[in-house]
Amino acid sequence: MNPSNSLKIDLYELTMAAGYFHHNVGLTAAFELSCHTMPENRSFLIACGLEQAVDYILNLRFSEEDVRYLKGLPVFKTVKADFFEYLRQFRFSGDVWAMPEGEIFFAREPILQVEAPIIEAQILETYLLSVMNIESLVATKAARVVAAACSDGRERGVVDFGSRRAHGPEAGVLAARAAYIAGALGTSNVFAGKNFGIPVYGTIAHSWVEAFDSEEESFEKYHRAFPENTILLIDTYDTIECIQKIVRVSFKDKLKGVRLDSGDLKTLSKKVREILDGAGLKQVKILASGNLNEYKIADLVKAGAPIDLFGVGTDMATSRDYPALDLTYKLVQTTDAKARVHYKAKYSPQKTTIPGKKQIFRRRDKDGFIKEDIIGLSVEDNPQKAQPLLRPVIRKGTLAGPLPSLEEIRRDTRRRLSGLPPSLLRLDTGVSLNPGYTEKILELTKANVPS
Amino acid sequence: MNPSNSLKIDLYELTMAAGYFHHNVGLTAAFELSCHTMPENRSFLIACGLEQAVDYILNLRFSEEDVRYLKGLPVFKTVKADFFEYLRQFRFSGDVWAMPEGEIFFAREPILQVEAPIIEAQILETYLLSVMNIESLVATKAARVVAAACSDGRERGVVDFGSRRAHGPEAGVLAARAAYIAGALGTSNVFAGKNFGIPVYGTIAHSWVEAFDSEEESFEKYHRAFPENTILLIDTYDTIECIQKIVRVSFKDKLKGVRLDSGDLKTLSKKVREILDGAGLKQVKILASGNLNEYKIADLVKAGAPIDLFGVGTDMATSRDYPALDLTYKLVQTTDAKARVHYKAKYSPQKTTIPGKKQIFRRRDKDGFIKEDIIGLSVEDNPQKAQPLLRPVIRKGTLAGPLPSLEEIRRDTRRRLSGLPPSLLRLDTGVSLNPGYTEKILELTKANVPS
Repeated sequence: MNPSNSLKIDLYELTMAAGYFHHNVGLTAAFELSCHTMPENRSFLIACGLEQAVDYILNLRFSEEDVRYLKGLPVFKTVKADFFEYLRQFRFSGDVWAMPEGEIFFAREPILQVEAPIIEAQILETYLLSVMNIESLVATKAARVVAAACSDGRERGVVDFGSRRAHGPEAGVLAARAAYIAGALGTSNVFAGKNFGIPVYGTIAHSWVEAFDSEEESFEKYHRAFPENTILLIDTYDTIECIQKIVRVSFKDKLKGVRLDSGDLKTLSKKVREILDGAGLKQVKILASGNLNEYKIADLVKAGAPIDLFGVGTDMATSRDYPALDLTYKLVQTTDAKARVHYKAKYSPQKTTIPGKKQIFRRRDKDGFIKEDIIGLSVEDNPQKAQPLLRPVIRKGTLAGPLPSLEEIRRDTRRRLSGLPPSLLRLDTGVSLNPGYTEKILELTKANVPS
Repeated sequence: MNPSNSLKIDLYELTMAAGYFHHNVGLTAAFELSCHTMPENRSFLIACGLEQAVDYILNLRFSEEDVRYLKGLPVFKTVKADFFEYLRQFRFSGDVWAMPEGEIFFAREPILQVEAPIIEAQILETYLLSVMNIESLVATKAARVVAAACSDGRERGVVDFGSRRAHGPEAGVLAARAAYIAGALGTSNVFAGKNFGIPVYGTIAHSWVEAFDSEEESFEKYHRAFPENTILLIDTYDTIECIQKIVRVSFKDKLKGVRLDSGDLKTLSKKVREILDGAGLKQVKILASGNLNEYKIADLVKAGAPIDLFGVGTDMATSRDYPALDLTYKLVQTTDAKARVHYKAKYSPQKTTIPGKKQIFRRRDKDGFIKEDIIGLSVEDNPQKAQPLLRPVIRKGTLAGPLPSLEEIRRDTRRRLSGLPPSLLRLDTGVSLNPGYTEKILELTKANVPS
C-alpha cells in the first residue's frame, strides 16, 4: 500500500479512536460492510475490491509526519501523548471474513466483516468503503455490459476505455481492474496493465489522423510503425469515404481492425462490413466505441450490427446510471473483557440495521442456479446443502491464506455469473433476490429494539 | 507527483508517441481541453484540477521499470530501442495556457491549452482529462450545494463528508479539494487536511453511541475526551428522546452541536431547536447530514429548518446526478518545421470540433455580471473591455509564475460566483450561456471542412 493512503479517511475514525483510547475501552468489535438498498436498475451486485482492502488492513501504519499533523489539529489538543504513541505503533491485529472477490451479492448481505479491538476495526471504515464501493460498482456495471455484448449467445469482447472519465487517475486503475474481473477482455489503462497484468488495448486517436495531410497518409504511417497491430479509426471526417479509402491501401491484407467512434453504429457497421467483405477483407474486425453502455450494446446486438469488439468508457468506469452504492460499515456486536457478547444495531428511520455477526447461506437449485440466500448468525449451523459465502481472509492480523490471482478471480466470477438465474441477468429489471433471515437472527433483532 | 502516476494513461497515447517518433514527425501541436456539451442540469461549470494537472505535466517521467514493462508488451515489439530511450529522457518542454482554477466556464470553451512537440502534448491527454474532469465536476456540484445552503441570503456552512462514497481513496481527496475551492467550509478527509491545509471536521459515528450501554454514557464519555469539541449524533435510536436526554446532561452548557443524520430533517430540526432553546441551549448548533444534495438543502432552507451546517457526502463527491463531464482534449492546430500553421478539426457526427488555438473573451455588464463570452483565435486582438480567460501557466516546460494558493483560489472562486447572473445560479434551470464566436474563427472553421 502507498503509505500516504493512511490518512485518506474521515476524521471521526480518529476522534473516536482517541475517545476509546482515553477511556481505555477494551471491547472487541465486529463491523460489517454491506449494501443497504439494491439499486433500482441492478438485479445483482458483484463484490470487488477485497485485494485493495486487505492490502490497506495489513499495511496500515501512521508515519511520524501523519502523527505530527494530527497532533497539531485543534481538535486533538486535549488528547494525551500516549494516543499518538499508540498510532505510531498501530498494527491491525484482528480477523477479517469476506466473500471472495467476484462473488454475487444482494442488498443487506455483508460482503466483509472485521472483528478486532474496537479502535482498529473502526479506523478501517472509510478506506474499506471507498475501495469496495468503486470496485463493486464498476464490476457490477461491467458484468451487465459484457452480458449485453454476448446477449445473442455469441462471444464479443468488451474493453475498458474509461480512464479519462473515471474519477481521477486512481479510479481509472481500480475501474480497469473491476471491469476485467467482471469479464472485460482488457483495458486501455497502461498502469492497470503493468500493476495487475491486465491485457492493454489501444492504437490511435483522431489526433493521429488529423496530424497528417490525409487519412491515407496517417494510416500508411501507422501501419509502418505497427505492421502487426494496425487498427484504424475511421470516423474522423466521413466514415464511409474513409472505409472506401481503406480497402485500397497497400497493406489492406495485414489490417487487423477498424474502429467506429460516432454516428449511427448500427447502419455504419453494416455498411463498413459490406464494403470490407466486398473487398475480400473478411479478417478485418470492427470495433465500436463512443458513449456506449449495456443498453446501447444490447440494441446493437439485437439489430445484428456486425461489431466484434466494444470499447466502453464513461458509463462503465463511472457506473454512470448509478454512481454510488449504498455501502455502509456498521457495528453489529461487541465482546467485552469477560467474553460477553453485546448485540448492536441502530434504529434511525430508513437506516435500521440488523445486529449480530452474520453468515450468508446460499442455496442453489438442481441446475446450479442461485435459489435463495439466507442470512443467519455466524454461530449458527449451516442449513443443509447451503454454501456459506463469508470466509476467513485475515486471522489475528495475518493473511489466512494466499489470495486468489486476478485470473482466478476473473474465471470464478464468470462461473458465478453463469449461476445467476436468467431473470436476474436481464438488463431491464426491477427484480432482485431478497435474502431471507434465519429465525435466530430475527429473534435477536426483535430482542434488541430499545424499549 | 507520485511517480507511479506516469502510466495511468491510455495505451494509445504511447502507441501514437511511438508512431510519431518512428516517422520523426517534428510538428508542434496545440491541444485544447473543453467540455463538449453542457449538462442539462447545470447552468455553469467551474474549472478545477489545474494544480494537479500542472504537477503531472512538470514531473512526468518514465522510470526504468515503466520502460521495461512497455518494452515487454507485444504491441511494442516492432518499436525500436531509441523510442524507449526517448521515454527515459522525457521532459515536457512546451507551453500551457489555462483558465485560473475556480473560473466559471461554459460548453465548448477551452479551459486548458497545451502547445508542445506533438508527442509531449499527446501523452498528457488521459491524465489531464481525468483530474480536470473529477475536480471540475465536484467543484461545480459543490458550488450549487453551497448556493442552496445560503439560498435565503443567510450564510450556512457546507462540509464535505463524501470520502466513503467517492470513487476510491484518491477521488475522495480530489473531491474534498474541489468542494473547498467551491465554497465548502472543509472536509472530513484527513489527508486532504494534511496535504492541502483544508479544515477537517468530524466527531462521532453511530458506532460510538452503540458501543456503550446507553446514549448518555456515550455522550458523557465523548465529552470527557473532547471537552471543547463536543458535537453529538442524536439519531441512533430515537431523535426526540435523545435530545431530551441531551438537555439534561451535566456538560450541556459546553455542548457545541448536535447532528441529525436521518428522518424528516425539517420537522426534526425544528423540534430539536425548540427543545434546545427551551433548555436555554441557544449556543448549540444543529448539523444535518444523510443523503443531502442541493435540492433537498434548498427545500430545507425554504421551509425554515433551523439547520446551521450541512454535511454533504455521496451526491457532492460523486456529482451523483451528473457523474462525468463530457471533457475532451482535441488537436486544434499543428505548426510545422517551417513555422506554417495547419488548422485541425474532426467532423465526426455530433463530435465536430472547432480548429485553431483559442482565447475566450468575457464581457461583463455594468454591475459586473457575466454578459457574454466570445471564443476567438488566440492571435486575435481583445475585443474592447473584454477579459481574456486563458493565461500562460507553463512556458517552455517551466512554471510561468507561482500558482495561487488554495485560499486564493477559494476566495477568487467566491468572487467569480458572485458575478454569475442570478438566472444561472438557480438550481432548476435548463438555461446556460452559449459562448459566441468571432468572425475569424467561424471563417476558419468553414474553410477547414474537408470537401
